[in-house]
Amino acid sequence: MDELRGHVRGRVATDAATRDAHGRGEGLHETMAPDAVVFGEDSDDIATTIKFCAKAGVPVIPFGAGTSLEGQVQALRGGVCLDLSAMDRVLEVSVDDLDCRVEAGLTREALNAHLRDMGVFFPLDPGANATLGGMAATRASGTNAVRYGTMRDIVLGLTVVTPSGEIIRTGGRTRKSSAGYDLTRLYIGSEGTLGVITELQLKLFGIPEQISAGLCQFISLEDAVNAVIVILQMGIDVARVELLDDRQMRACIAYSRLAPLQPIPTLFLEFHGSPAIVADTTTHVRGILKANGGGALQLAHTEEDRNKLWKARHDAYWAARAIAPGFDGIATDACVPISKLAHCIREAKAEASASGLPHALVGHVGDGNFHMLILFDPKSADGRGRAEALALNIARRSIRHGGTCTGEHGIGLGKLEMLYEEHGESIEVMRQIKLALDPNNLMNPGKTIPLP
Amino acid sequence: MDELRGHVRGRVATDAATRDAHGRGEGLHETMAPDAVVFGEDSDDIATTIKFCAKAGVPVIPFGAGTSLEGQVQALRGGVCLDLSAMDRVLEVSVDDLDCRVEAGLTREALNAHLRDMGVFFPLDPGANATLGGMAATRASGTNAVRYGTMRDIVLGLTVVTPSGEIIRTGGRTRKSSAGYDLTRLYIGSEGTLGVITELQLKLFGIPEQISAGLCQFISLEDAVNAVIVILQMGIDVARVELLDDRQMRACIAYSRLAPLQPIPTLFLEFHGSPAIVADTTTHVRGILKANGGGALQLAHTEEDRNKLWKARHDAYWAARAIAPGFDGIATDACVPISKLAHCIREAKAEASASGLPHALVGHVGDGNFHMLILFDPKSADGRGRAEALALNIARRSIRHGGTCTGEHGIGLGKLEMLYEEHGESIEVMRQIKLALDPNNLMNPGKTIPLP
Repeated sequence: MDELRGHVRGRVATDAATRDAHGRGEGLHETMAPDAVVFGEDSDDIATTIKFCAKAGVPVIPFGAGTSLEGQVQALRGGVCLDLSAMDRVLEVSVDDLDCRVEAGLTREALNAHLRDMGVFFPLDPGANATLGGMAATRASGTNAVRYGTMRDIVLGLTVVTPSGEIIRTGGRTRKSSAGYDLTRLYIGSEGTLGVITELQLKLFGIPEQISAGLCQFISLEDAVNAVIVILQMGIDVARVELLDDRQMRACIAYSRLAPLQPIPTLFLEFHGSPAIVADTTTHVRGILKANGGGALQLAHTEEDRNKLWKARHDAYWAARAIAPGFDGIATDACVPISKLAHCIREAKAEASASGLPHALVGHVGDGNFHMLILFDPKSADGRGRAEALALNIARRSIRHGGTCTGEHGIGLGKLEMLYEEHGESIEVMRQIKLALDPNNLMNPGKTIPLP
Repeated sequence: MDELRGHVRGRVATDAATRDAHGRGEGLHETMAPDAVVFGEDSDDIATTIKFCAKAGVPVIPFGAGTSLEGQVQALRGGVCLDLSAMDRVLEVSVDDLDCRVEAGLTREALNAHLRDMGVFFPLDPGANATLGGMAATRASGTNAVRYGTMRDIVLGLTVVTPSGEIIRTGGRTRKSSAGYDLTRLYIGSEGTLGVITELQLKLFGIPEQISAGLCQFISLEDAVNAVIVILQMGIDVARVELLDDRQMRACIAYSRLAPLQPIPTLFLEFHGSPAIVADTTTHVRGILKANGGGALQLAHTEEDRNKLWKARHDAYWAARAIAPGFDGIATDACVPISKLAHCIREAKAEASASGLPHALVGHVGDGNFHMLILFDPKSADGRGRAEALALNIARRSIRHGGTCTGEHGIGLGKLEMLYEEHGESIEVMRQIKLALDPNNLMNPGKTIPLP
């Protein structure tokens, strides 16, 4: 470590508190601390550290905001944690091209604060204020992927430090290209196992002239999902369409004081566009909601009301946690073809109810993605086991119905077993790629794609 | 070949006419015939043939409609051409999920004919009636990528036969997933060099309630491009926005009898949505065009008029060819950040004019992609050389301005040199992947990523 200190600009920490703070994300996996933490200041620092570790045969684990849920940052075999949070510069913004270049340690909220007066914004919003590098590494998305896509779609190019410490650039600035293998998409979702993302070229979007939000309550969850199917089929451009189930609504009503609302399945919606487009979209959506058994579309008429609505949605996790103070929680992440969504949610809810464990459900329903938060008493002997079994069933059911075990949280440690069930023989191709690019298995070893 | 005949369902042809017909696409590269052509009937046929070739150390070249432009199907080292055109079944359509599964030899037009009465469609339209497998292999797009994306965006999953003859499935049916490496995107654009695509899971879209098209003429090409920049910045949802330069317009007016139009830079536009949204979009766009020096927005009021407009656009290539009968043509494929587009087009046109070679230009201007068709007399001693030098300059300028040498045609043979200039050190990572997955370099050898 002393040798490394002389070669990087950033700080190198080996104290227990720093190491422990970098040994876990926000999931349930136990802390596994790295041996050292390097606070990289630029791509050269990252490259220097990786070369140093390659020579010494030491694992490298990249770390952004530490908000991943599936054990992506745990140092399974010790090694050096590369903390990128000091690499938080906005390198370039082009409003004409609707793009920007940023360092990987910048958070999504910091980027939007920087863009605030430029008329453009970066839409993706995973629950946490994650770093953009971490969001790319886990292929994250959030509530408005239905309109703006996921990190897969919004990243134009990357700077990556390879396992041998070379700095390469992938992709470019154009909206499309047919030039060679799509390395950008290969690194997106690879969770640091193929290299470390140090910079990102990102699409931006013009701030919509008008934003309108509202909610609609349903007696039946199936009806709510069916309404969304019709909206999507008709090509109606919703920016957000989120489902909260009866239990989640009960929790939110209590937590976020949504007194006049009922604890029944509810869609939260948002529309972006010109005033005429938003008005027309609202009219169409209102009709579809009504035809599918929904109550009145309750619009948020002021910006304050709209913010309150989305604050309640973003606080859904905390609202659900408040159902059972002192309990731990597991968030599932199944994503299915939308025609299977109502069925999969219904089955998940039936199993959860039968388990007796407290739970609540939110869904990025336009994408077919839903999260059930399953709560358990950490002091109970079998609570965690029952919660994990339930989560496993939900992931397996998703796969059986043509879906994925993870819509946006990633594989990390937590879903390795599921990856096999989901991707079968193609795992071997993933393994060939991993071994070709990182033959000594030093890049975040044990994550995403396990080696024999 | 006799041995292979006993193991595949499809026909195995070794006659010279069939081999020659499979030794070239639609580009200028000379015919290089394979030793045999296998007309695969299912994934098993493809797998059997690939296993047979792997054992014999014989190259395999996949072939769809033979419409690629960069020498993607030339059998540089002989070998077996896998013709997938008999694999043209639609395997499944889900209107609820807006997706379908098809065999790779199905053409885009055949897919849309199949979907005609279902209220959904597949939007991407490269110039040719290509197969969907070929479109994925070259990462193709067309005139409406600005709204619907490219093959990168519209493919949800693939069935691929690997270089060792294993049949794997990548991706899935969901709109998003964070499960493992993005093999789907790796195979898209890999031009058969990593495996053969045999089936595709594709997104579909609801047919818009209303479609409206029109055109607008400009004195200045810069003004036309600037109008498009404003349209994009404001987030106005255009389905198509195509630029034709003065020379292309002169050619189209003659070829497609567009008598009242002037031979000046022209935007062809199309809007999709509800009647109210189309009306509002039209109003906004009309204002932007006018504010940027455009003439009146001339709407196609009937479906017949609209079809005539787009027929003229799709015939632009033949119109330009008709400028110089008997000449050959090279189509460039530069794609740049849109802020650089006017500059790059202006410079390309100046060089082309100075060269004295006939030429014309069309652009998928919403994507920053433009094609200059450069014509030359094949009987002239230096015509082709001058045309190629001009094309090279256009690609190089694109790269210098943060763009790509190919927006949608691919690398094949024709742009190998450019790939190096564009992607630098990252080529080494592409090479590592190629060697890991196809260590004997038998999959379409010599294309996309050259090995030392």
